[in-house]
Amino acid sequence: MTRVSLESTVAAVRPADQPAMAAARELQARLTKPAGSLGALEELSVRLAGLAGACPPPLPTPAAVAVFAGDHGVHAQAVSGWPQEVTGQMVANFLAGGAVVNAFARQAGASVTVVDVGVATPLPAALRTEAAHPDAGVPDGGVPDAGEPGAGVPGSGAPALVEANVRRGTRDMTVEPALTRDEARAAVETGIQVAERLLDAGAKVLLTGDMGIANTTPAATLIAAFTGCTAEQATGRGTGIDDAMHAHKIAVVRAALDRHAPDPADPLGVLAAVGGLEHAAIAGFILAAAAHRVPVIVDGVIAASGAVAAAAFAPDAVAAMVAGHLSAEPGAAVALTHLGLEPLLDLGMRLGEGSGAVLALPVVAAAVRVLHEVATFDSAGVSEK
Amino acid sequence: MTRVSLESTVAAVRPADQPAMAAARELQARLTKPAGSLGALEELSVRLAGLAGACPPPLPTPAAVAVFAGDHGVHAQAVSGWPQEVTGQMVANFLAGGAVVNAFARQAGASVTVVDVGVATPLPAALRTEAAHPDAGVPDGGVPDAGEPGAGVPGSGAPALVEANVRRGTRDMTVEPALTRDEARAAVETGIQVAERLLDAGAKVLLTGDMGIANTTPAATLIAAFTGCTAEQATGRGTGIDDAMHAHKIAVVRAALDRHAPDPADPLGVLAAVGGLEHAAIAGFILAAAAHRVPVIVDGVIAASGAVAAAAFAPDAVAAMVAGHLSAEPGAAVALTHLGLEPLLDLGMRLGEGSGAVLALPVVAAAVRVLHEVATFDSAGVSEK
Repeated sequence: MTRVSLESTVAAVRPADQPAMAAARELQARLTKPAGSLGALEELSVRLAGLAGACPPPLPTPAAVAVFAGDHGVHAQAVSGWPQEVTGQMVANFLAGGAVVNAFARQAGASVTVVDVGVATPLPAALRTEAAHPDAGVPDGGVPDAGEPGAGVPGSGAPALVEANVRRGTRDMTVEPALTRDEARAAVETGIQVAERLLDAGAKVLLTGDMGIANTTPAATLIAAFTGCTAEQATGRGTGIDDAMHAHKIAVVRAALDRHAPDPADPLGVLAAVGGLEHAAIAGFILAAAAHRVPVIVDGVIAASGAVAAAAFAPDAVAAMVAGHLSAEPGAAVALTHLGLEPLLDLGMRLGEGSGAVLALPVVAAAVRVLHEVATFDSAGVSEK
Repeated sequence: MTRVSLESTVAAVRPADQPAMAAARELQARLTKPAGSLGALEELSVRLAGLAGACPPPLPTPAAVAVFAGDHGVHAQAVSGWPQEVTGQMVANFLAGGAVVNAFARQAGASVTVVDVGVATPLPAALRTEAAHPDAGVPDGGVPDAGEPGAGVPGSGAPALVEANVRRGTRDMTVEPALTRDEARAAVETGIQVAERLLDAGAKVLLTGDMGIANTTPAATLIAAFTGCTAEQATGRGTGIDDAMHAHKIAVVRAALDRHAPDPADPLGVLAAVGGLEHAAIAGFILAAAAHRVPVIVDGVIAASGAVAAAAFAPDAVAAMVAGHLSAEPGAAVALTHLGLEPLLDLGMRLGEGSGAVLALPVVAAAVRVLHEVATFDSAGVSEK
């Protein structure tokens, strides 16, 4: 597979197709149901028609979730109650099919691809030989090779591993930039290559996932940097911290913002200064979905920070984004408001991994299915109002 | 199949099993995720363990939605913008697979059973021979016979028809009781028999659906009668009516309440005075699910009015109820608050047919699947906080 650059991906992102949206609105009005009675699903179906440039848009199947995993230098600032080693341990859990995202993906019929874009600890050799495709690796600049055609194929059973470690965790953003610009670019382009591979394998919808102990701290910092909100507004309790640790975490986010004064007009610079490798990869993953006019279901706060970065690179990328759920992390709501997106689910979840995106997949599929399958008043012989 | 009575069904409803709930809470705490990170899904899994009396509770598959259809004498009071003939036309649409509930059920893998419990217009003969099982009918008191074993089997492809018409639409509740007590009982027991049949055929979760032009008016009246709220609080715009018609509809609900002064301690009397045949059938359907300790996903405002009736017959029936979504109809929120239920989805939908219940099915399944499939910290070798 040819390596696809950030610049060419951004250049391929185009606005939604207005005639397809108008056709979807007109079709919704003729279906055998009261006008507007499907609420948010109607507007979602219209947006997806605009993205695809067709009415009805394709059914979102097969579906592929990519779980981007990375570690964080800012973990040293005691912003999480969990040891860093859990990131690598959870990668092993994903590959064994034992995590929540695996259970949800089996339920929804989505494939799971786990991407080591920045885990601190090397994966055990056994995992690499069992799950990874043989010629995976990190050629030029941390971008994964296309690999074996079967790896990560939507609908195939076992989770796939993509080894694309750009560096073994970011630097501590409170003392220096988390990444160099080249590293940030490599992570973004890793996300692009993973999306390209999944789309080549037939995926009709992509779903974002993440794993990384301490990764709500860079997520909050990115959301503050891109939206202009305060550290307090963006920073939550992540996996569960007490009031004192929460206040400290807000101070850490503020310190990183003060030190780097990230410029939202330079998204790669923001990702390098205060980002995470999985956040940057998710930005690229979203951009590639938008470039291919395929919907991407955005998970929680990590994904939302990647989404605001993607929109900073290419504002029209928002047309491809579906907000799967509203994370309990406050930064998620800030980011979705900034993007003008309404979340589909609001269940008080705050797990990450892609769990909220996968849970929303059947809702997205149902919205599209209506345009494919529901009879019109004319065709069904049903009287109108 | 033996006909199961209202009394024996109510007598079989038992409280949730506390040890199974405690076991589910304890298991949730050991799974590889931060405590509480699955939000509402964790409490749902605990409730379903309590209902089943087992941890984990069974996966909710196969799933069966029953769409109870009926007409309403109160339609004569001009409370809906739609002609009454649409009820029967939509029954034909359901049987042809062309309605929203059919598209959603195909998406979620649920079977669809359409029950004529009170449609005003006789169904066309062609529909009856194509879709109905040969020995269906309305033996003693409007209760459907068990019929052919294959009819309505969860997972079987085509929608099934159950003919159990108790009467061809209710009487106008603003001038007389909508139903006799015997008719109300026959409708409730129709719901019980349909649930019994679907459970016998293997269903592990039931979903409520409804069709009936003008049926939000009796739903609002039932909700006001059982919860004590006002006509204004319970009455919405149904399929879409203007301010003047909405004010008139509120006056109609108030007039029915004033005329009959329904006593919530006599649920059959309430259903007879101001109910609908599909509302009463849904109450029975829910009671039967509770008696068999199988979850029932409650759809919108019609289902919610059936649910408050079921809880009036047997308060412990609430343990079997899962609120699929929050209908845009205001009475739905009143009813769910009365029952102490939190809806899973809130998408501004107001269609009925069971659409919101079916849309929530994958969320319910995902919540249960977590208890079956997710690894523990111990088993996965993941470090704890």
